[in-house]
Amino acid sequence: MKRHNFSAGPSILNREVIEKASHAVLDFDNGLSLLEISHRSKPFVDVMENARALALELLGLEGKGYKALFLQGGASTQFMMVALNLLEKRAGYLNTGTWSDKAIKEARIFDDIYEVASSKDANYTYIPKGYDIPADYDYFHCTSNNTIFGTQIKQFPDSPIPMVCDMSSDIFSRTLDFSKFDLIYAGAQKNMGPAGTTLVVVRESILGKVSRKIPSIMDYKVHIDKSSMFNTPPVFAVYVSMLTMEWLKGLGGIAAIEKENEKKAQLIYSEIDLNPLFKGFATKEDRSIMNATFTLANEDLKETFDTMVKEAGISGINGHRSVGGYRASMYNAMPLESVGVLVDVMSELERKA
Amino acid sequence: MKRHNFSAGPSILNREVIEKASHAVLDFDNGLSLLEISHRSKPFVDVMENARALALELLGLEGKGYKALFLQGGASTQFMMVALNLLEKRAGYLNTGTWSDKAIKEARIFDDIYEVASSKDANYTYIPKGYDIPADYDYFHCTSNNTIFGTQIKQFPDSPIPMVCDMSSDIFSRTLDFSKFDLIYAGAQKNMGPAGTTLVVVRESILGKVSRKIPSIMDYKVHIDKSSMFNTPPVFAVYVSMLTMEWLKGLGGIAAIEKENEKKAQLIYSEIDLNPLFKGFATKEDRSIMNATFTLANEDLKETFDTMVKEAGISGINGHRSVGGYRASMYNAMPLESVGVLVDVMSELERKA
Repeated sequence: MKRHNFSAGPSILNREVIEKASHAVLDFDNGLSLLEISHRSKPFVDVMENARALALELLGLEGKGYKALFLQGGASTQFMMVALNLLEKRAGYLNTGTWSDKAIKEARIFDDIYEVASSKDANYTYIPKGYDIPADYDYFHCTSNNTIFGTQIKQFPDSPIPMVCDMSSDIFSRTLDFSKFDLIYAGAQKNMGPAGTTLVVVRESILGKVSRKIPSIMDYKVHIDKSSMFNTPPVFAVYVSMLTMEWLKGLGGIAAIEKENEKKAQLIYSEIDLNPLFKGFATKEDRSIMNATFTLANEDLKETFDTMVKEAGISGINGHRSVGGYRASMYNAMPLESVGVLVDVMSELERKA
Repeated sequence: MKRHNFSAGPSILNREVIEKASHAVLDFDNGLSLLEISHRSKPFVDVMENARALALELLGLEGKGYKALFLQGGASTQFMMVALNLLEKRAGYLNTGTWSDKAIKEARIFDDIYEVASSKDANYTYIPKGYDIPADYDYFHCTSNNTIFGTQIKQFPDSPIPMVCDMSSDIFSRTLDFSKFDLIYAGAQKNMGPAGTTLVVVRESILGKVSRKIPSIMDYKVHIDKSSMFNTPPVFAVYVSMLTMEWLKGLGGIAAIEKENEKKAQLIYSEIDLNPLFKGFATKEDRSIMNATFTLANEDLKETFDTMVKEAGISGINGHRSVGGYRASMYNAMPLESVGVLVDVMSELERKA
């Protein structure tokens, strides 16, 4: 039976990428596995440099003073690293969900953090708008897409200070003027690759301005100086991320995949809005094109719906415990067909009920 | 041509492990790749728990108050994390090589570090002995094996304070009373798996004694409380580490592999000692059974030797730039046969020269 994987992350990857990755584990360099060659060998240095260049190319940030790094530790490590590298006195954070909230909590260990706005009181169903970003703060931090709640920032503010954005769950999924951002970070395990590496794209000129002594492994400048090889990189995760970026480039880049993502989102959200058995969780104007969150209007249908979903080969659509209901994650690698299968099941439930 | 991979790390893995890993990338759970399933799904939670249990079992530390974690960021992150979690006033470090030296440098960012002894002045050719470990320090830190210099601690001190050991390059390679140690860490990419995860084995009772606020991602207690799933773990690297530990257990565990490792070491060191064309780098009594370092007595033979080495299918034996010459890394997965091929080439050079 064909599987339709709506997992929130780690999540679906393109099948060709998976096949190439599997082969590289067996034989990458004249019979040696990708896992057993030196990270300083030319074949892997080429992978790393290609991955770094592709990230900047896809984001349209080549030649604009940015550097791309592939680090370890996930976005959770970036919460700390951003503060260590950029926080001197005070920073402003937009609180749009669990991950923003965690970013704030971790940065507060180092210094003063001000929430410019928050939708926490409304269980993060919407994205706050019309807030001020004080010009004398060190930086402004936001989360572009909130996986758990299914909301997404559509209009980014014009920040008078460096803008830092956690794009873990929608990197490479939609066209934006990425030069508005000074630091973008993203755990690989949604749109980019397997868990185990984190993309950091940083405008070099914002670094070197804090007075604290930064541990080497946490210092963006150290990683830039060492071409993202300060310590042994997560070789396999970087390689699979490179393959995914090559695949995306081959499709026509972010602009091409954005069209597909919009079609998928439209398909599921129309069903949510038209089918009386379902209710969307997020405010309409802030709905994410990556993660659609919804609940059953009548919880009595849960068992029936869950069985139908399972029989259709659909997996990974249980909602996060803080929201309940369902979450359909439709990352770049998910075909429209899979969303179609889910929508068919939702319609079928309406006919049956 | 058969390849003999003497790479210092990332390095050789068992072929069966590589084949299973390659298959899991294609199909791990009913047609889904290991890379695209949720880390919270039962199949992966089982992998993580199995890996954690195997690490304690192989080290003989089950039921002794230890917890095993699979983290990210390599030993370089542990340099910082050890200090953040354990350093309140002062710690003692043994300086036996480049990695000890880095560990000291990074810990000094947080507080006072005292070198109990160092072999730096002799370019780390030997392991210092007979030093004192002050009983009123927070902990004592050492590096069990020095990849670059080819030295290894044979007798560990009886430390009056918690003993922390970086075992990145000889974990699971020899029998020791591991309960002498209070915290052991090891990057996976030598004896355990691919680059991208770090094993930490910690005696829980030594934690929670510092006054600083530790960032969550750096807090061992947080990771223990979350069963090594505080954030998305490096799924693939943990899985391959688990496979390697299963393979090792199947062979008879550390005691069994230690015999093989000793045979390999004996084979190459006798050649180094008997063949007048080669000189060993490390002091004999401190020689590592993982990494044999040696130079040519006559540099004029370098081109000939390098060509012969290449023709024999041998790779990865160039010495580190701080030592020069050659380094044969013979981790657990390396068959005696490969060491035999290298020794044959060394003997052949003597006959030719």
